[in-house]
Amino acid sequence: MSPTGLFITLEGGDGSGKTTQAERLAEWLAGEGRTVLRTREPGGTEVGIEVREIVLHHRGDITPRAEALLYAADRAHHVATVVRPALGRGDVVIQDRYIDSSVAYQGAGRVLDPDAVRRLSEWATEGLRPDLTILLDLDADAARGRLDEARTRFDRLEAEASEFHDRVRSAYLELAAAEPERFLVIDAALPVDEIAAAIRDRVAGLL
Amino acid sequence: MSPTGLFITLEGGDGSGKTTQAERLAEWLAGEGRTVLRTREPGGTEVGIEVREIVLHHRGDITPRAEALLYAADRAHHVATVVRPALGRGDVVIQDRYIDSSVAYQGAGRVLDPDAVRRLSEWATEGLRPDLTILLDLDADAARGRLDEARTRFDRLEAEASEFHDRVRSAYLELAAAEPERFLVIDAALPVDEIAAAIRDRVAGLL
Repeated sequence: MSPTGLFITLEGGDGSGKTTQAERLAEWLAGEGRTVLRTREPGGTEVGIEVREIVLHHRGDITPRAEALLYAADRAHHVATVVRPALGRGDVVIQDRYIDSSVAYQGAGRVLDPDAVRRLSEWATEGLRPDLTILLDLDADAARGRLDEARTRFDRLEAEASEFHDRVRSAYLELAAAEPERFLVIDAALPVDEIAAAIRDRVAGLL
Repeated sequence: MSPTGLFITLEGGDGSGKTTQAERLAEWLAGEGRTVLRTREPGGTEVGIEVREIVLHHRGDITPRAEALLYAADRAHHVATVVRPALGRGDVVIQDRYIDSSVAYQGAGRVLDPDAVRRLSEWATEGLRPDLTILLDLDADAARGRLDEARTRFDRLEAEASEFHDRVRSAYLELAAAEPERFLVIDAALPVDEIAAAIRDRVAGLL
């Protein structure tokens, strides 16, 4: 089965507006007559929901390698049972987080070799790459400010220090610089409508 | 930290007598004045219990790559938080199942490349190898007979066909043949006392 649909991933820190932009893009694509599947990692399958529960809410530490492997397990199951079948039907898949999240968070953000983390995900997904990755870039202080407005309780990852978010942001920007043809980097501090328009322009060229 | 203890793993199909022999060996070692830690994979940690629950009791299929990654995640956490600290204290670790199980079950038993499965576990464990691996070898029909006596309900893996058990057994024997210095292969159909004595003889030489 060779994928014929369009695989679009959204990346960026929590609070960068991925959910809002995924909604806007999905609405626009539906208006263009495309079948759209919105999904996310971790947690895009029943197995993934159980894995997500372990990763995000386990009491006590999870070692970095175990965490990377759990994310990869979720990804393997999700790609094989959800993403590839949808692409095979010709759908547009809009996905919240993918391999770049693992490389940025587990690789650069923690103590693991980013290349090892990437190889893990590439094995998990049998090499499935997005056609387009939208990086909503927001500095850590702004991201924290947005989250504070919306919530009072942080989960385990969100409670990490802002220095961690800085490292993740840098890792994201390096990934984007290395693959400019795959990435669209947008300042997440811009107005929502302006971001949505920039995304539509880029996606229109891929349809 | 360089391990100074002794890392002994038990391998073989369900029903081959691993639990009984682990008990017997642990009792003997304790009598020799050694501190013994008995543990198992999957499920040797709190994280592992949650992972084991997903792998063994999830309703519906788990894709082979996801399953291999879940086992590797359990292993990574278990080795880092339980096995390596015990070995560092000089303990004898007696463990039910380790990397050879993954290679035999996920690799040879399913559709994955055994070498890829092994590399996954070696990354997960940062290359920790057993000092001794005891393979309790039992043909599939005998193993099934033993299980039928003991239980009426099988979990997901145990319900697989006996052809699958044949492939696993062959894979185990190939692993043992490739590393004769690490493996002790014993016919699990021998009397329990005879097996226990053979294991004691081999372990005595390692103390």
